[in-house]
Amino acid sequence: MPNPTAAILVIGDEILSGRTRDSNLHFLARALTRAGIDLREARIVADRGAEIAAAVNELRARVDHVFTSGGIGPTHDDITADAIAAAFGVGIDERADALAILSAHYASGRAEFTEARRRMARIPEGAVLIENPVSAAPGFSLGNVHVMAGVPSVFEAMVASLLPRLTGGRPLLSQSWRIMRGEGEIAGVLAELAAEYGDLAIGSYPFHRDGVFGTNVVVRGEDGGRVAGAVARLATLFPA
Amino acid sequence: MPNPTAAILVIGDEILSGRTRDSNLHFLARALTRAGIDLREARIVADRGAEIAAAVNELRARVDHVFTSGGIGPTHDDITADAIAAAFGVGIDERADALAILSAHYASGRAEFTEARRRMARIPEGAVLIENPVSAAPGFSLGNVHVMAGVPSVFEAMVASLLPRLTGGRPLLSQSWRIMRGEGEIAGVLAELAAEYGDLAIGSYPFHRDGVFGTNVVVRGEDGGRVAGAVARLATLFPA
Repeated sequence: MPNPTAAILVIGDEILSGRTRDSNLHFLARALTRAGIDLREARIVADRGAEIAAAVNELRARVDHVFTSGGIGPTHDDITADAIAAAFGVGIDERADALAILSAHYASGRAEFTEARRRMARIPEGAVLIENPVSAAPGFSLGNVHVMAGVPSVFEAMVASLLPRLTGGRPLLSQSWRIMRGEGEIAGVLAELAAEYGDLAIGSYPFHRDGVFGTNVVVRGEDGGRVAGAVARLATLFPA
Repeated sequence: MPNPTAAILVIGDEILSGRTRDSNLHFLARALTRAGIDLREARIVADRGAEIAAAVNELRARVDHVFTSGGIGPTHDDITADAIAAAFGVGIDERADALAILSAHYASGRAEFTEARRRMARIPEGAVLIENPVSAAPGFSLGNVHVMAGVPSVFEAMVASLLPRLTGGRPLLSQSWRIMRGEGEIAGVLAELAAEYGDLAIGSYPFHRDGVFGTNVVVRGEDGGRVAGAVARLATLFPA
């Protein structure tokens, strides 16, 4: 059987103007090659709804999977979700499960749950959410189109959440643990943990918050007991 | 007069497989912004003649300039020149001036002038050569399609050779304003400003600095007075 085929659509004026250098395309190209999926084409388009919808409709008819990056944040120029709904001719509205995820995230007090951030709970009709263990706001799959964030750490975590579903592997269970230290300080311990738990994937996603460097560690695996065991070990080593 | 528009087509299996990370797209995006040319779209396609020709024909009908990168070297998978000739429906053959440039380059003894290298003198009918001060083998412009090498140093040198020949419109003026708040907190105000200044592009670029969340807001447009007006409004709303 031939490999499944794919395309990626990167959305963002800031890439086309040269202000930001995209890294998601290269990351996804490598991840797909490892997963046995052939990336056939990549496109970068501006933050314009009609162009996003046209590109999505052309690509989704031609390849097995279309991955998009960018335009699902809280600001007025985040129009990807609406453009995807328009491309499929379906409605879009705030969805209870997405809202619950965001509410829980902001309830922890790390930032204010503004009206703008609430927009990130708007999901096209019929979509399946893509988990975002880094910053909560979910991506989504609608048909064969998989819509993810542009921020590289979030994009990469979403790809890890999504790929097992596409390759027909058993879904990976995931748990995350937040450690208020820089990545460089915990790298040694993470390497030892990864060696001990060879059956798990342990990813680290650094962030800054309130002047402190921190790292979200995401543990993924097929065996829930093993995942919980690794996270319990992290919690012992680095208490909340 | 509106700025000229452009697209870039990057050709190369090695980019889509993730083996190589493209840098030409980002380089050209920056160069075009400085030259006052609006990059509207970027595509990456594989080394397949039919796909290259189809993408070139679609893009050249839609923008003022199409820039291509890759596939004009000496090996069997360097098929870009043939694909461009096919896209335009013109012939392709070895050309005396291109051959003279290559002969002179290799006559200096730095490498053997093999039959394979001689293929690089094959140029589509009616094209204008693009100078390559790095490694001699020329690129070419056919109509509004500018065909350049994939090797970054060569690509960059060819862009420098080519750009002065292309007519730049008025460069887009831009001003930025730094606001020490997270993107989600200012999204509402930015949306109102974007609605009021429909002729300007208002982009927001979040950052962390010294433990504080902030956003650089970049205002771009052709009319300097309007750009300054929008930025003055931001400065009133969010004093430095």
